[in-house]
Amino acid sequence: MKICFIVAMQAEAQPFIDRFGVEEVKDFFAPLPCKLYRTTLGENELDVVLNGQQHGSDLVGCEAASVATLAAIQQLHPDIVINSGTCGAFKKNGAAIGEVYVANAVMFHDRRVPGDDAWGTQALGNYPVYAGAAELAKSLGYKMGKVTTGSSLDMQPCDLQIIEENHGELKDMEGAAVAFVCSLFQTPILLLKSVTDLCDSGAETFEVFKKNLAQASQAIADANERVVKYLLK
Amino acid sequence: MKICFIVAMQAEAQPFIDRFGVEEVKDFFAPLPCKLYRTTLGENELDVVLNGQQHGSDLVGCEAASVATLAAIQQLHPDIVINSGTCGAFKKNGAAIGEVYVANAVMFHDRRVPGDDAWGTQALGNYPVYAGAAELAKSLGYKMGKVTTGSSLDMQPCDLQIIEENHGELKDMEGAAVAFVCSLFQTPILLLKSVTDLCDSGAETFEVFKKNLAQASQAIADANERVVKYLLK
Repeated sequence: MKICFIVAMQAEAQPFIDRFGVEEVKDFFAPLPCKLYRTTLGENELDVVLNGQQHGSDLVGCEAASVATLAAIQQLHPDIVINSGTCGAFKKNGAAIGEVYVANAVMFHDRRVPGDDAWGTQALGNYPVYAGAAELAKSLGYKMGKVTTGSSLDMQPCDLQIIEENHGELKDMEGAAVAFVCSLFQTPILLLKSVTDLCDSGAETFEVFKKNLAQASQAIADANERVVKYLLK
Repeated sequence: MKICFIVAMQAEAQPFIDRFGVEEVKDFFAPLPCKLYRTTLGENELDVVLNGQQHGSDLVGCEAASVATLAAIQQLHPDIVINSGTCGAFKKNGAAIGEVYVANAVMFHDRRVPGDDAWGTQALGNYPVYAGAAELAKSLGYKMGKVTTGSSLDMQPCDLQIIEENHGELKDMEGAAVAFVCSLFQTPILLLKSVTDLCDSGAETFEVFKKNLAQASQAIADANERVVKYLLK
């Protein structure tokens, strides 16, 4: 089995990279900035793909995630893609910092194209997630929630409106883009997210995000390890 | 010389496709939904890549544009990418429906990540455009303007703020994503946009867009033809 993690930021992936002892395969995606870390687990292959850097910082957001996912699927042919990372969540839904969720659905919350017709449907996305996600979450004791994705760290009123109308619970910056590209190849995708900030806490998102990133990245590393063992059992 | 047009919608490309007699190369990008139309002009190759369809409508927006551009560059190796299509513009800047612009700059207006530091800089993008753009625009008599890209057809106050702060003039839904992917390969990119709607007219964008799409697509077909002749002269 080939498992491929797609992760935006090095800081989100580092605890997991350290733990699994995956090694960087230099320039695998060159000239793309994406980075590949790889190891084998018995007969299985474990790949971790990072978006890489541009303009002096790790590439985040939907365009970089689209590029990394397309390159990963084309060059690595994974049996399953796991988009692992951090997210915002809502206090009112009972979420807590560092808590890990498995997605039961994924869509965009910041692609506003009018109408309930094909344009509107396509803009929201709503891509399929890994068919075994519910069983996995139950077996490992993780909550499930709907991931909604947007290109910004903040949440504007227009974002919140779409999130509420669609019962979104986990707000991230890459999930739907990764899922969109997976949908084109019918590659199964599992989304695994740990909470860095509570969107309805009134606190300044960026400060809270920075403060909680290390804790949430440790939590997601634990979860990644458990999920890999579950998938390979 | 290999010229590759990247176009979101079939309707935007059709007048141009008809005029140049480019022929569809079926399943060139399969399983990706992107479509390739190709012809030769003397020793030169002219490719037109469309995003293709999903969920029953043409794929628009930044994720589809990222995928199409990456696939096009990897599989076609163009000497120049031309992102040709429609956009919104501002009456206050003297724009008119059907008018064609050449981009002198391109960035995102809906990727809000705090700070003037590396994160904020990366989020806005500001990718390089074709070094010969100004000479081309002058020679062919087109206005120039800064393209700003977002994933929505509407314009929220938060979008307008970033557009105004950065002196954006042409609002589209793909340009910066195409330019981002081109920047990773250092492939020159020319952005050629014709105006379907005036963002500051008070009219409902989607209705105006539908009404003016045919006119703007004819205008862009004329411009595409002139630009190809200019580049190959």
